[in-house]
Amino acid sequence: MTKRILIVGAGAIGSLYASHLTRVADVWIFVRREDHARTINERGIRVTGHSEFHTHAKATKDVRELPECDFGIVATKANQTREAFAPVAHLLQNGAVLSAQNGLGSEEIIAELMPSGWVIRGTTFMSGTRFADDHVHYELNTATWMGPFEPTNTPFERVEELAGLLNASGLKAEALRDARPAQWSKLIFNASVNAVSALTGLPHSPHFAAEAEFSDLGRLLHQLIAEGRTVAAALGIELHEDPWTMNCIGAQTNHPPSMLYDVRHHLPTEVDFLGGAIAREAQRVGVPAPLHTALYRLIKGKEASWSWKKENVLEAVNDAVPD
Amino acid sequence: MTKRILIVGAGAIGSLYASHLTRVADVWIFVRREDHARTINERGIRVTGHSEFHTHAKATKDVRELPECDFGIVATKANQTREAFAPVAHLLQNGAVLSAQNGLGSEEIIAELMPSGWVIRGTTFMSGTRFADDHVHYELNTATWMGPFEPTNTPFERVEELAGLLNASGLKAEALRDARPAQWSKLIFNASVNAVSALTGLPHSPHFAAEAEFSDLGRLLHQLIAEGRTVAAALGIELHEDPWTMNCIGAQTNHPPSMLYDVRHHLPTEVDFLGGAIAREAQRVGVPAPLHTALYRLIKGKEASWSWKKENVLEAVNDAVPD
Repeated sequence: MTKRILIVGAGAIGSLYASHLTRVADVWIFVRREDHARTINERGIRVTGHSEFHTHAKATKDVRELPECDFGIVATKANQTREAFAPVAHLLQNGAVLSAQNGLGSEEIIAELMPSGWVIRGTTFMSGTRFADDHVHYELNTATWMGPFEPTNTPFERVEELAGLLNASGLKAEALRDARPAQWSKLIFNASVNAVSALTGLPHSPHFAAEAEFSDLGRLLHQLIAEGRTVAAALGIELHEDPWTMNCIGAQTNHPPSMLYDVRHHLPTEVDFLGGAIAREAQRVGVPAPLHTALYRLIKGKEASWSWKKENVLEAVNDAVPD
Repeated sequence: MTKRILIVGAGAIGSLYASHLTRVADVWIFVRREDHARTINERGIRVTGHSEFHTHAKATKDVRELPECDFGIVATKANQTREAFAPVAHLLQNGAVLSAQNGLGSEEIIAELMPSGWVIRGTTFMSGTRFADDHVHYELNTATWMGPFEPTNTPFERVEELAGLLNASGLKAEALRDARPAQWSKLIFNASVNAVSALTGLPHSPHFAAEAEFSDLGRLLHQLIAEGRTVAAALGIELHEDPWTMNCIGAQTNHPPSMLYDVRHHLPTEVDFLGGAIAREAQRVGVPAPLHTALYRLIKGKEASWSWKKENVLEAVNDAVPD
């Protein structure tokens, strides 16, 4: 029997899930913009890159058009989870919902919005770029790791079923009894790289792996990753992959992390779900995390600067001399 | 006998020293721009604010026009010390030179450039705004603290003599046997506030003193100041004033610190003489300073971002969803 799947959010990741899953399931896409829904309904979704195909798809911004579903996949930014998922939570009261989002804390929000239903803890390493509302470019065909979200006692069979659908659709997924080692590996990597990028303005460049000089940024990355590892260990989590290795590979790409995009465009960042989540978990279990906490506060300060009244930041003539 | 004083740099601070000292000494001003020298020579310097007067003054960018002097006052940005002072160092081989600059390390550079001559360790709390090449507005009429720079064995009488000239000129100065407690008080304050401002984009706003919430920036300022105090203590320096109190007063002003100006205009910052100096002193004496070290590396990363090739920071379509 064909399963019905609701994709919440159609950015790069949501578009990749939606397009591939149309091959094996009845897919519905919940989006925010009317014209985004119309474009997808009229033109479908075109996938290029690692996969090359074109598919029809059903999208809407109107909750009343959506049916009850067996699975949900939330693919919004972490800080948009509540706003995006609340209107559709009732459609999944007998289903299971995967968070394929960055950081820590989205599962808790999804669970809170669903009185019944199961939540699946997810971390995806696939990547893509959305060139247009109906065109996504599939870049890294890396797996989505997923496991039961502990508080909802999600049956492992449900996790395996969704992983099976993803694998059958042409994507990669792996069902894990405990998804936290995978989630924390990516969390530590993401929190460290995104914060440093957002604060320096550098993309994920070779600077992030440079450690020769005292002033080198790679030394800070190394310390942030070690600190994150200490917090994970205090929670009893042994990492699935080494975030420092991930950092050194990424530092060759010059990829602009999402938080760099956010701060350039004065958009709220995901920092509460990244470095902020590490800082709060550290505080909760009583281990120090001074560096993640410091960078978290700096980014909250940066967000505050965008609305801080402009008349207060008038500039004096610079003191630079002799001139 | 009238003393001859050379002012190196005529930003706000240099202009305040130069204009006031013309009342009691033979003052020469060394500047970088030809038109700056011409304006001062033709129109003098007008002072408004705490003092109100107009004075003639002699300025040049040509070292050959300058006489040998009894005193020098270096009032450039700390990172311009070498470039600005090297050409005139020989004119002070029998004199004493005050560094009235931010941070730690300028005295060492001045001493290195003068085979003979004495160096005076200085910290100024006066402030002003240069409205034009010939117009400086005198804001805070707070003292310049000064004392012998230890390695050059500067006689205390020389320090007292320069302090006397400054006081006679209408400015405030205090000669101290040990100027390091004053210098470190301002260093810790300056390093903390400038780095946080440069990284967040906030001026010295009330956020810097807010501590109610876990994410509040005042908590980071408190930690940075405590860390700086620990480094000072390890060097045997007891602070002259409390940097946290200075921070809380400044946080009411919305003043844009100089490093915020620098990062906005992609100019090299003074971070090597502020947080970088604290970080290196900490390393030298073997006490931890993880936060100043982290912020130092972030600001060096930010400076590096300005010259990092632009084609590497192209932006993908944002992943923000649902949209």
